[in-house]
Amino acid sequence: MRAATVRDGEIVVAEHADPQPGAGEVLVRVRAAGLNGADMLQRAGAYPAPPGSPPDIPGLELAGEVAELGAGARRFAQGDRVMAVVGGGGQAELAVVHERQLMPVPEALDWPAAGGVPEVFTTAHDALFTQAELGLGERLLVHGGAGGVGTAAIQLGRATGASVVATVRDRARHAEVAALGADVIGPDGFAEHGPFDVVLELVGAPNLSSNLEALAPGGRVVVIGVGAGAKGELNLLAVMGKRARISGSTLRPRPLEEKALTARLMERHVLPLLARGEVRVPVSDSFPLDRAADAYERFAAGGKLGKIVLLTS
Amino acid sequence: MRAATVRDGEIVVAEHADPQPGAGEVLVRVRAAGLNGADMLQRAGAYPAPPGSPPDIPGLELAGEVAELGAGARRFAQGDRVMAVVGGGGQAELAVVHERQLMPVPEALDWPAAGGVPEVFTTAHDALFTQAELGLGERLLVHGGAGGVGTAAIQLGRATGASVVATVRDRARHAEVAALGADVIGPDGFAEHGPFDVVLELVGAPNLSSNLEALAPGGRVVVIGVGAGAKGELNLLAVMGKRARISGSTLRPRPLEEKALTARLMERHVLPLLARGEVRVPVSDSFPLDRAADAYERFAAGGKLGKIVLLTS
Repeated sequence: MRAATVRDGEIVVAEHADPQPGAGEVLVRVRAAGLNGADMLQRAGAYPAPPGSPPDIPGLELAGEVAELGAGARRFAQGDRVMAVVGGGGQAELAVVHERQLMPVPEALDWPAAGGVPEVFTTAHDALFTQAELGLGERLLVHGGAGGVGTAAIQLGRATGASVVATVRDRARHAEVAALGADVIGPDGFAEHGPFDVVLELVGAPNLSSNLEALAPGGRVVVIGVGAGAKGELNLLAVMGKRARISGSTLRPRPLEEKALTARLMERHVLPLLARGEVRVPVSDSFPLDRAADAYERFAAGGKLGKIVLLTS
Repeated sequence: MRAATVRDGEIVVAEHADPQPGAGEVLVRVRAAGLNGADMLQRAGAYPAPPGSPPDIPGLELAGEVAELGAGARRFAQGDRVMAVVGGGGQAELAVVHERQLMPVPEALDWPAAGGVPEVFTTAHDALFTQAELGLGERLLVHGGAGGVGTAAIQLGRATGASVVATVRDRARHAEVAALGADVIGPDGFAEHGPFDVVLELVGAPNLSSNLEALAPGGRVVVIGVGAGAKGELNLLAVMGKRARISGSTLRPRPLEEKALTARLMERHVLPLLARGEVRVPVSDSFPLDRAADAYERFAAGGKLGKIVLLTS
């Protein structure tokens, strides 16, 4: 099979041996695979693949058809449309995924959209609901509202009955992000728009002290992106005074059982909304596998709304 | 009535008008009232009493007998032994407390012990269970294990089936703290004793980065004391990598309904253990009300194990 492949800090398309599904696993003919920030880090050699994933094939998510079932795999049948968050190796013509990590693809989604769903919606759902316990009527602030996770978070926040304010640096994107249901503001001075019950931090440490200032008593800050810097000063008295909670996470290093749990939560809480068209995946651009290097350049250039997706077969 | 009273940064004993219980409130003849770090701040003028509390009478906890019932109060009868966390005014001969904030005093507790229970056990229970969700078999690190909250937290941690390591600066206190059920270590190098699922931070910002280093994946840090400094650098990538959660809180500013909820949790989860003698309140020293200033000096001097309590009537 062919796959996007990291070679000396570049992305090339190379031949690899076809992977074989083991017990409980499924061989997926990948149709579409979204790009994510972690792929950029992996291309640069800064984020090695976790154990059990192909070391040189990036790709944290995929959507495709079941090509073959490993021993004992019984959740899906050949030809079923499936998608998943994976530890790596998604940007290939074929990928092996444990059946417990797979989710069905709702009929309403075409391949580019399905390839862009798993990582950003699972990340946004985990951050907003599992970590921050966002609830009906609360006020949510999303930093970095124009990105993949940002656009997913805005929509999930609105869908659960929260009001949403989003910061977006690129003013050319404000109207599109507002159309997803957020009050969109420039990146500075956001604390004046608070107080917020939940802050989703996709930008990084420079927002840390203003996030605490903007927080309502009992508020929660969830950090899942630090592109603008990872280290900042934290005032613990402010944390205590606000009775605040700061958490962070990444999906990629989680073990099978935890990835499987997030897939079950997605099936219960997010796929019904995708199926009914109540939330959607903005796909900014899609590229055939042959142009994987261009897709990475497009992602790295920024200024996009939503996902960049590779169409792998 | 007489009460410990803040005058120009000093504690004196002064006469005040007797408080009157309003609807749903209870007049308590206070027998014992523990001292806490917040009282020291209030004495120094740095921590004004919250609205609704006497502005110049410190005291965040009390135990005593029901002297009079306000209109509609029906949870207790005259003469019942009760105790509570209050917003202030506990270090007096009389105090008015809403009946929903009051807890019964288990028979096993004498007055000095009862006066030292509410603040530290409510704080420790809230931090370990409501915030950190400490569970059976987990590993708990308590920073500042010789203080009031520290000794309560060590015992509650052991009682719930966690293993407990405690840092204690004063080596003369190590054996006494160990007798409460913790492995006691000096304050430095604690990360080598990890990983910990929960860290209870009673010391402050200097421990922040080592706490993250010492944390197990999915671990929780709860900050409820910052005597050694409030501001420190936080590495958000470390938070994400550990899938960590940092929270903080104080009890004093919480509204009635939240203080009442903590009292119900205490009744369900902590009073049975106090009644059976499975956890206890180490009382370091008790002072009559007339010697309130001495009690404050004793508290401020540090190096104690457990509570300093005023015997108010």
